[in-house]
Amino acid sequence: MNPDITRERENATFNVEKLTHILDGGIEKTKRRREIESLVISDPDFQSEDLNFLSRSERYDAAVKKSAQMILKLREYGISDPEEIYCYKSVFRGNHQEALGLHFVMFLPTLYTQCNKEQFKKWVPLAESFKALGTYAQTELGHGTHLRGLETTATYDPATQEFVLNSPTITSIKWWPGGLGKTSNHAIVLAQLHTQGKCHGLHAFIVPLRSMNTHIPLPGVVVGDIGPKFGFDEVDNGYLKLENVRIPREHMLMKYAKVEADGTYVKPPSDKLTYGTMVFIRSMIVGEAGRALAKSCTIAIRYSSVRHQSEIRPGEPEPQIMDYQTQQYKLFPLLATAYAYKFVGQYMNDVYHRITGDISQGDFSELPELHALSAGLKAFTTWTASAGIEVCRMACGGHGYSRCSALPDIYVNFVPTCTYEGENTVMMLQTARFLIKSYRQASAGHQLSGIVSYLNESERSLQPQSVSSRPTVVNVNDLASLVEAYKLRAAKLVELAAKSIQQELQKRVSQEDAWNNSAIDLVRASDAHCHYVVVKLFAAKLGEIGDTGVHSVLSTLALLYALQGIQQHSGDFLQTGLLSVPQLSQVSQRLKELLAQLRPNAVALVDAFDYCDEMLNSVLGRYDGNVYEHMFEWARRSPLNKTEVHESYHKYLKPLQAKL
Amino acid sequence: MNPDITRERENATFNVEKLTHILDGGIEKTKRRREIESLVISDPDFQSEDLNFLSRSERYDAAVKKSAQMILKLREYGISDPEEIYCYKSVFRGNHQEALGLHFVMFLPTLYTQCNKEQFKKWVPLAESFKALGTYAQTELGHGTHLRGLETTATYDPATQEFVLNSPTITSIKWWPGGLGKTSNHAIVLAQLHTQGKCHGLHAFIVPLRSMNTHIPLPGVVVGDIGPKFGFDEVDNGYLKLENVRIPREHMLMKYAKVEADGTYVKPPSDKLTYGTMVFIRSMIVGEAGRALAKSCTIAIRYSSVRHQSEIRPGEPEPQIMDYQTQQYKLFPLLATAYAYKFVGQYMNDVYHRITGDISQGDFSELPELHALSAGLKAFTTWTASAGIEVCRMACGGHGYSRCSALPDIYVNFVPTCTYEGENTVMMLQTARFLIKSYRQASAGHQLSGIVSYLNESERSLQPQSVSSRPTVVNVNDLASLVEAYKLRAAKLVELAAKSIQQELQKRVSQEDAWNNSAIDLVRASDAHCHYVVVKLFAAKLGEIGDTGVHSVLSTLALLYALQGIQQHSGDFLQTGLLSVPQLSQVSQRLKELLAQLRPNAVALVDAFDYCDEMLNSVLGRYDGNVYEHMFEWARRSPLNKTEVHESYHKYLKPLQAKL
Repeated sequence: MNPDITRERENATFNVEKLTHILDGGIEKTKRRREIESLVISDPDFQSEDLNFLSRSERYDAAVKKSAQMILKLREYGISDPEEIYCYKSVFRGNHQEALGLHFVMFLPTLYTQCNKEQFKKWVPLAESFKALGTYAQTELGHGTHLRGLETTATYDPATQEFVLNSPTITSIKWWPGGLGKTSNHAIVLAQLHTQGKCHGLHAFIVPLRSMNTHIPLPGVVVGDIGPKFGFDEVDNGYLKLENVRIPREHMLMKYAKVEADGTYVKPPSDKLTYGTMVFIRSMIVGEAGRALAKSCTIAIRYSSVRHQSEIRPGEPEPQIMDYQTQQYKLFPLLATAYAYKFVGQYMNDVYHRITGDISQGDFSELPELHALSAGLKAFTTWTASAGIEVCRMACGGHGYSRCSALPDIYVNFVPTCTYEGENTVMMLQTARFLIKSYRQASAGHQLSGIVSYLNESERSLQPQSVSSRPTVVNVNDLASLVEAYKLRAAKLVELAAKSIQQELQKRVSQEDAWNNSAIDLVRASDAHCHYVVVKLFAAKLGEIGDTGVHSVLSTLALLYALQGIQQHSGDFLQTGLLSVPQLSQVSQRLKELLAQLRPNAVALVDAFDYCDEMLNSVLGRYDGNVYEHMFEWARRSPLNKTEVHESYHKYLKPLQAKL
Repeated sequence: MNPDITRERENATFNVEKLTHILDGGIEKTKRRREIESLVISDPDFQSEDLNFLSRSERYDAAVKKSAQMILKLREYGISDPEEIYCYKSVFRGNHQEALGLHFVMFLPTLYTQCNKEQFKKWVPLAESFKALGTYAQTELGHGTHLRGLETTATYDPATQEFVLNSPTITSIKWWPGGLGKTSNHAIVLAQLHTQGKCHGLHAFIVPLRSMNTHIPLPGVVVGDIGPKFGFDEVDNGYLKLENVRIPREHMLMKYAKVEADGTYVKPPSDKLTYGTMVFIRSMIVGEAGRALAKSCTIAIRYSSVRHQSEIRPGEPEPQIMDYQTQQYKLFPLLATAYAYKFVGQYMNDVYHRITGDISQGDFSELPELHALSAGLKAFTTWTASAGIEVCRMACGGHGYSRCSALPDIYVNFVPTCTYEGENTVMMLQTARFLIKSYRQASAGHQLSGIVSYLNESERSLQPQSVSSRPTVVNVNDLASLVEAYKLRAAKLVELAAKSIQQELQKRVSQEDAWNNSAIDLVRASDAHCHYVVVKLFAAKLGEIGDTGVHSVLSTLALLYALQGIQQHSGDFLQTGLLSVPQLSQVSQRLKELLAQLRPNAVALVDAFDYCDEMLNSVLGRYDGNVYEHMFEWARRSPLNKTEVHESYHKYLKPLQAKL
């Protein structure tokens, strides 16, 4: 054990284990999580070479192997609870992806929820036994977020009682679905349904892609891998071009909408039924943002405690990097953010499960608010977390750039969350739509409830209007007061956005153009709303914590989170008259004090995330802090070191020398 | 040609070619650049498969091949001007690296400048004929920025008149030098010189690493590749462990410092002599920031003009992405930034060449200012450009994540500039040191000249002190007035940092601790200083432009750049009383107008950067806008598509299906 990191742990002022239990949701959950983790860690089948040393084809191969092993092992161990499966996967995946991910996350769930009885009986056993290996093909080469723009067609032919599927244009080729390129033999294809001469919009169809015996693509199916990406090297994201592919009528998923044998179309009873999954996945991503940032902070903070560099005081030994104020300022606010997002993730998960109960009873009343919240928070947290991972990486100096740090892998595997499951700017604008609608309702005299109740007229009339009009009442040392300030900022920015739309409308532009011409303000308002929610939920979490030591350190983190946000958006707080200039100086001063106050607990706070070395897979983030010897050992395994002299010397350099 | 992009070009209000000449530095330079570019583009030897389809070893191999070819071709064409060589390399490298880069950038220049006459005669011909293939080995596993911390030793043994080189610890292993792992047979090694029982600090030694006949590592030399990284896959960044490696006394570079045969150490005449190269490289990086961002904007803006998505007005066809205000707000300020950095890069290059003349005549007077400026601007521009590349990538939606967009390559190859040649935070603090020193001189009554003259007492007394004290005079529509505002902000933030140090000293902490406890403020002050310099230089550049159309569009860009910076740092401008709250609303409104104003010129403005398709190597950034068909074609070449059925199906999936 590196003595620096041991000393850090000795200096911590709280019980790390207790904090871990809070993060897991209880002592029993921590215990069970560790049991599952140890199943993977101790399993020789999951010991493999660092994927970074392999070619893409080898990485894909290794990922398929692991997925196949996992399926057998989960059955062997009798693990079937989704949370436990998730936990098991998290360990063997490390910072990489699972080859069969879409089969579990999209193919099976879609079958479960959208098959009618006969379909269920046929397809679910095939999928559960992996005879049917599936994916979910929605996005197309020229179309993503905007579902109505999708071009793939499924035209019903009553003569043969078949659907004929086609990719009529280049832009209609299905593009991106994970597992589509090489792995899947089936796909749920989203296509525009045409029958009896009319288009009825997007519907889902089960399309066989490859022979279930030979895995060779079926006639009319042009399928393949879309090529290398920033990350996701293990996944065969694919393309699919359909050329008059015929499937039986029964391959349309018919739990809700139907096409009868003669081609008569039967509408689904509600369009909100497929809404829930999307909300669930976005809520999950908020938790992922917390986890990705927590991992990154673990690596950067542990390494900053054993890395010595430069000098603060001349003549003294090189200090730990973590003693530099600039390093603390880079890392500790991100640490606070990681905690904030973990708590927000827990909250979203709880709310989702509560509301799901209501939905299954036909009560959709809370869905719009949750939908708006999950969209905005997904964007808010993934943007911040992505940028934060890179800050952590660069805070490790040059070594953060090595794949041995794991930070490049964490980044490239997390950053697509900014784009998938709803592009972030589009998500922010969806939340803004809800906020503006709520604002208008409140302005029209309706009383709002829930998270947007701060938009009620009565609340808004209490807001300070400008710097000069009235003294501000924010206490920068009091978290409750800061939550209030964030709330008022959100209210003010929603109002500003609404007024911008109003002004545009006065120029006689259309409602739609007014919206587009105010989009910058709308995103800003959503951002402020989400920020408020995060600060509020962090503060609320403190109320649940009994242990004094843990409560104290989390309070410091929460205050740091809130104050750093104010400093970063100081213009907003000054502009809306919520803070005065002298108070802003106070904020800066207080931030510096909080950094110094957190310094002794930094390593303990990342230890509490409890990522084992096998999950981090980072030489810099090792629990024992013995970084450099393991870095040397890792480097020696680099494929370029397999031979002393690389063949390119004989091929190019020696001949060059001979010519000159 | 895609009709959308044709229409964009038709709508431009200025002459693109004239702007290209300005960027190149004259019509003749544009002509010559294009001649050189066409040499590479038309050369069948440089046509190769996309590197992204290759394994790392294959990529290294391909890069060595290209470098060897380049050397012969440059001789054949008689190209020897450094700028022309740089241009030639830019084309064949694309978004990747050169295998022999360090030989040209560090090994040869160090020999040229630090060899004495006899050494020059021996080593320069060996290096110029590539018999000696070299690199520059400075950083160590545990040491980077802080040179005094380096541990490698070179101990003089007068008995044999040799130096004995050693890596005494794990942390002293040389780590990171490009070309060290497999390519080089020599390295210039920086080591602590010990002679006659005393250590004389870092000196440079020529150390043979591999046999010049067989390329096999020499005894005592443990050398290899440090393993895969975020990018730089083509480069064999290496490690070097020296175990009692003996080199003749004459292998110490002795132009300045010397060790005589008996071991007597002779000091160098000045320590500023090796200072210039560092300043030069940092200045170069500022230009690189402009180029990386310009490439990224070219890709994102062209693609945004041909990509249609969602709807602004219901029922109408999907609009070009570039019509969304949020998309304009992401991309146009970055476009303005790219122009700004290109002009700053030109300026730095000019200043460097002017000052180099002075230095060669022994006049070092301007060096400290240039040193401070290049350090801060390197940090300022690389941070912004790195983040900006990612914004461009994500502005391309999912396809930005594909390697075919080229944006992942641009990012991973550019982002290390934040760390190498001086870690960015350290650079910011170096600039701060100069600013604080200047501030103190001014406070003590000295009259400052040059870029920091705004810190003179007389200037500072003109600054507004707070929002309330006096009316602000900034005109948000006038660039000169905005330059003034940036200047006053910088002055104010330097003052705040100086006061923070003062306050710390009053708490009786040491000067060094006071500095560290004010580091956040110091970085902020440097950032404001650099921002001022960039805005000022952009404004100054406008004065040189005669063509009305070009002048008009660049003026709009400059105003956008200045106003967006104010919006992003609105807290600073409000806090320092430079802007009022109503003015801030004006800024927001004006920004939106400028976005709309730039919209018709966006494609023309990236066309003016004049990156040919071969240099961009981006399917999304194609000049002809025909994105989707080429994306499909690119994907089909993916190595995973070499076989219809991947071997992993037979190895893992079929057996799995059989078991369940």
